[in-house]
Amino acid sequence: MLLPERVTITEVGPRDGLQNEDTFLDVERKVELIDRLAGAGLRRIEVASFVSPKAIPQMRDASEVVSRLQRRPDVTYVALVPNEVGARNAIAAGADELATVVSASETHNLRNVNRTVEASLAGIEIVARLAQDAGKPWCGYIATAFGCPYEGAVAIADVIAVAVRLRALGAYAVALGDTIGAANPRQVSAVVREFRARLPDVPLRLHFHDTRGTGLANVLAALEEGVDSFDSSVGGLGGCPYAPGAAGNVATEDLAYMLRRMGIATGIDLRSIVDAARWIEGIVGHTLPGRVKGAGEGALTEVS
Amino acid sequence: MLLPERVTITEVGPRDGLQNEDTFLDVERKVELIDRLAGAGLRRIEVASFVSPKAIPQMRDASEVVSRLQRRPDVTYVALVPNEVGARNAIAAGADELATVVSASETHNLRNVNRTVEASLAGIEIVARLAQDAGKPWCGYIATAFGCPYEGAVAIADVIAVAVRLRALGAYAVALGDTIGAANPRQVSAVVREFRARLPDVPLRLHFHDTRGTGLANVLAALEEGVDSFDSSVGGLGGCPYAPGAAGNVATEDLAYMLRRMGIATGIDLRSIVDAARWIEGIVGHTLPGRVKGAGEGALTEVS
Repeated sequence: MLLPERVTITEVGPRDGLQNEDTFLDVERKVELIDRLAGAGLRRIEVASFVSPKAIPQMRDASEVVSRLQRRPDVTYVALVPNEVGARNAIAAGADELATVVSASETHNLRNVNRTVEASLAGIEIVARLAQDAGKPWCGYIATAFGCPYEGAVAIADVIAVAVRLRALGAYAVALGDTIGAANPRQVSAVVREFRARLPDVPLRLHFHDTRGTGLANVLAALEEGVDSFDSSVGGLGGCPYAPGAAGNVATEDLAYMLRRMGIATGIDLRSIVDAARWIEGIVGHTLPGRVKGAGEGALTEVS
Repeated sequence: MLLPERVTITEVGPRDGLQNEDTFLDVERKVELIDRLAGAGLRRIEVASFVSPKAIPQMRDASEVVSRLQRRPDVTYVALVPNEVGARNAIAAGADELATVVSASETHNLRNVNRTVEASLAGIEIVARLAQDAGKPWCGYIATAFGCPYEGAVAIADVIAVAVRLRALGAYAVALGDTIGAANPRQVSAVVREFRARLPDVPLRLHFHDTRGTGLANVLAALEEGVDSFDSSVGGLGGCPYAPGAAGNVATEDLAYMLRRMGIATGIDLRSIVDAARWIEGIVGHTLPGRVKGAGEGALTEVS
């Protein structure tokens, strides 16, 4: 196996995780969560989504969270922005990096944001200009890149077409999201190869949900294709695995554990991230799907 | 990815799964579980362990279970046998195939069965002779093949040495067990390659527990090395994932789902195995770790 020696993990628990949890965390708790994650060694953290408070109440205090962060100089604090207003607010609050989202499948985009893919890309063009003016890098997420809850299979060509557009608009990187956790390893391999062939110079990040338990297998398939950047959420925050259709991202501590055991550096301290997972589990009040936190002391000391 | 076109799954839920569950199932329930598994398309089922009732009370009715099976002609019903008495009883009850266990690590073998590895191999020699006399194939499990809870890392050479001995004693196949779920994909790759190099003609089966969430990633690494035979347990039966140190095998339905999505045939009907997982979950009375059963209708219809 020829694999990357080092992997960058972008922690998305405070955003993608929390926005799918019922328990509301106040600003203090959110800031504490983010600081615990930074303390565990995460150097990229998606901290909030600057959406309408009506759409996602959990994110209603995004500006306050970002402005009250206990900033560490070596950490990049990323803000998800759905539109121009969100981008202006995120920039004003002091986010280091912006992220936009558009789906690869038309139906999901329509149901998710009530716009066509083309209309979303037009909106992203405005965000891109704001980011450029503010000197902020921005990354383009493509949702439903491995499957759509409405359309089923998503053609690789559709994913690549959106990625090409995002790059043309100035995205410094593209993140492909497996929104419903339906990716399989063979597909991951095929999508990554096609992406590399068409956009060889564009940094690629992968964002797997673990709805069907295949998250780490999908990570492995991507590692084997040389992908070295992944999203994950502490504890697998973002959905009880036993509620149909709702499941969080790959758990950060499980991802960090597997990589460490494979001799791949992440900079994450396993004990600290497990502590953070247990802490947030206590706050959201239900068992989170991450496995390493329940695997006993042995798992924390095993190295490659 | 050059992968096997077809994979054989050996269901171990009625044995490895149940023996680690607190809820006692009576003979009728066990027979019903086994029949549901056969009905879902499983063609190899480990149905009981012929151990001392004092050691594992759940398995005290092993003979009755095997003799009362609703036998299907195309299903192989496997019995785990720890010693001569167990082997005689399993053969008398009508098991189709026997399985023996010995650990790759001395300390685990001592703690598990209070014997040295050498003493276990001497016992297996007796079982092997009984199996041969009865015309029953037998397979040799090697426990702690990817890590030991007492010794930590286990040398590949130690695993291979035991495998060579088992083959010499007449095992038609060898199964490597990741007893504590500590295997990582890179290690799986290395162990399989060494096994193939040293024992090129011996059918190899892998038995992963999912204690750290890496089970399916380990399966993927093995598939890439050409391994086409795996153990799993329905629902991931065999341990609540949130109790430190206790975790079941890879869930049969999750394994079957991933393989189907990768275009690899297993003969398993996903809806039926998910039904079986939900049924046994209701009986043991706690949430089982398998993910596909909670992923909604979409997961049952997705194909490659």
